[in-house]
Amino acid sequence: MSDAGIWHGGDLDVARRLFPDAPDPWIDLSTGINPIAYPMPPLPACLFERLPAPADHEDLEAAAAEAYGAADAAVVVAAPGTQVLISLLPALRPRSRVVILGPTYAEHARAWRGTGHDVVEVGSLDAAGEADVLVVVNPNNPDGRIVGRQVLLDQAERLWARGGWLVVDEAFADFAAGETLVPVLPENAVVLRSFGKTYGLAGVRLGFAVAARDAAGMLRRVLGPWAVSGPALEVGRRALRDRPWRLAAQEARGQDARRLDDLLEPCSDQPTAGTILYRLMGSSRAPDLFAHLGRHGIWVRRFQFDPRLLRFGLPGSDEAWRRLEVALTSFR
Amino acid sequence: MSDAGIWHGGDLDVARRLFPDAPDPWIDLSTGINPIAYPMPPLPACLFERLPAPADHEDLEAAAAEAYGAADAAVVVAAPGTQVLISLLPALRPRSRVVILGPTYAEHARAWRGTGHDVVEVGSLDAAGEADVLVVVNPNNPDGRIVGRQVLLDQAERLWARGGWLVVDEAFADFAAGETLVPVLPENAVVLRSFGKTYGLAGVRLGFAVAARDAAGMLRRVLGPWAVSGPALEVGRRALRDRPWRLAAQEARGQDARRLDDLLEPCSDQPTAGTILYRLMGSSRAPDLFAHLGRHGIWVRRFQFDPRLLRFGLPGSDEAWRRLEVALTSFR
Repeated sequence: MSDAGIWHGGDLDVARRLFPDAPDPWIDLSTGINPIAYPMPPLPACLFERLPAPADHEDLEAAAAEAYGAADAAVVVAAPGTQVLISLLPALRPRSRVVILGPTYAEHARAWRGTGHDVVEVGSLDAAGEADVLVVVNPNNPDGRIVGRQVLLDQAERLWARGGWLVVDEAFADFAAGETLVPVLPENAVVLRSFGKTYGLAGVRLGFAVAARDAAGMLRRVLGPWAVSGPALEVGRRALRDRPWRLAAQEARGQDARRLDDLLEPCSDQPTAGTILYRLMGSSRAPDLFAHLGRHGIWVRRFQFDPRLLRFGLPGSDEAWRRLEVALTSFR
Repeated sequence: MSDAGIWHGGDLDVARRLFPDAPDPWIDLSTGINPIAYPMPPLPACLFERLPAPADHEDLEAAAAEAYGAADAAVVVAAPGTQVLISLLPALRPRSRVVILGPTYAEHARAWRGTGHDVVEVGSLDAAGEADVLVVVNPNNPDGRIVGRQVLLDQAERLWARGGWLVVDEAFADFAAGETLVPVLPENAVVLRSFGKTYGLAGVRLGFAVAARDAAGMLRRVLGPWAVSGPALEVGRRALRDRPWRLAAQEARGQDARRLDDLLEPCSDQPTAGTILYRLMGSSRAPDLFAHLGRHGIWVRRFQFDPRLLRFGLPGSDEAWRRLEVALTSFR
């Protein structure tokens, strides 16, 4: 559990405390991070030693603009991960009524609430009401729900009339079909894109906001000129321009997702859902399955809002696939 | 020049544009970064691939607390560089009257002004007047001026009565004598410490705020849980605990600073000043010297507020020392 009591993936310390007798090494399927990382380029010492050059930072934003389909690099703001952008946005607005389409990634609600905004979570955009800020994770985490582009554009227009923002977290959009809002960016939208999940490099800390010039300028100002590290600039520029790698990864992870669905199906009460980087299964026996997997040294993601759900990231090795298969088939 | 027209060190692209015929490689003396970097430890792939573990982040803050003399790791907040902390602080306060002891590092004024605060730069604390926020860079950049601890404690007490903050940027305090405010931290003080300058690893992006629990909590909230990269966590924890390296570096850079002073003395109208990571010289012929050095491929720091000043970082190799010596002795 994190400091604020929100469950996150990725913290094996918690797994080890809960299941002290489980085999080590653990298989961590609790995140939605691509388990087959983009190969890190050589990192010469100067990347660690020198302040990142402004020209390199601008080039990274140009590479991101191209990869994400932005009209112009001026609307792209690089940051040390999308998490810091999620945390920063609430500091840029006066107290607002914030509506979050949920259930979804819990850090959005935490960030807006923690800064004193009034936050409501709704299950449908019909209930969005008189929001000043609407937050949509698209595709949604954990269930993969996709809100269509035109629906979001209509919401943006409605918000525009009251000086409101539409925040669209596209953390898992890289490998999804063409519904991103970036190429048709409304003036009052802030779109978040994650680098670490797609490229399997979450430790690098790199993410982007795509926003109209005003909001982009505000974010640039609060982040300052050197928020992104030298190594992140280097691998980011290279990876975002490597379209063949991205397409091959999308194909391979898509196959992995189907393989995982086949393994999960016998344990599930309902069809699996999600994106190709994580699969969500639902079962009345989910708490038992969570414990069973834990005793086998396999750490998956459970959810405070619904104990019947478990989310599985993709195994990243033959050994991980084998152990998962053994554990799932021995669950009775 | 940066986007906002503030001159910074470190951007050799500007040097190359100004002096297209200068020899390459350039010698960059325009920053105050230790030219002899802390040796990077091996960086296993998992540091780039996995989300940084909360326990490692906490351990980094514990290492910083010990290195800086903080009473408790709870007052230490790790960030991807101090620049982002400088940029964030103004977003955490309502519109305030901000007094900056100047002339000093220009990003403080830019950050507070850019967020709509009323900013005044004063040359003496006697003129601090009715500040809500007082910003002191200590030791000061570029002139090395040191404000004594008791003076700062008195200012903090005065500010406390009006709900004000004392911001002390100790970016260059690691190698200075024992005047840091950290061990006697007032409730309303925010002290900034830089990792990259001392350890010569500016590209890693790592810095710290030391602040009472309320302000530390606010900063933690806006930075979110994963603002520091895996490689930064790894080298930060190791370097901050390496007291022998820090003491040896202080001794060696102190000798370098004295050697640099000897070279600068014949060109100066006044005694050099600064810290052991940069030396400030004053001369009516400084603009000519700047251009002379530029033509020799040596990039130093000039200042918009006073054209008679030049700041020199330390050369980091025998070749750099030799080229600097040749250039300075040929200046007539």
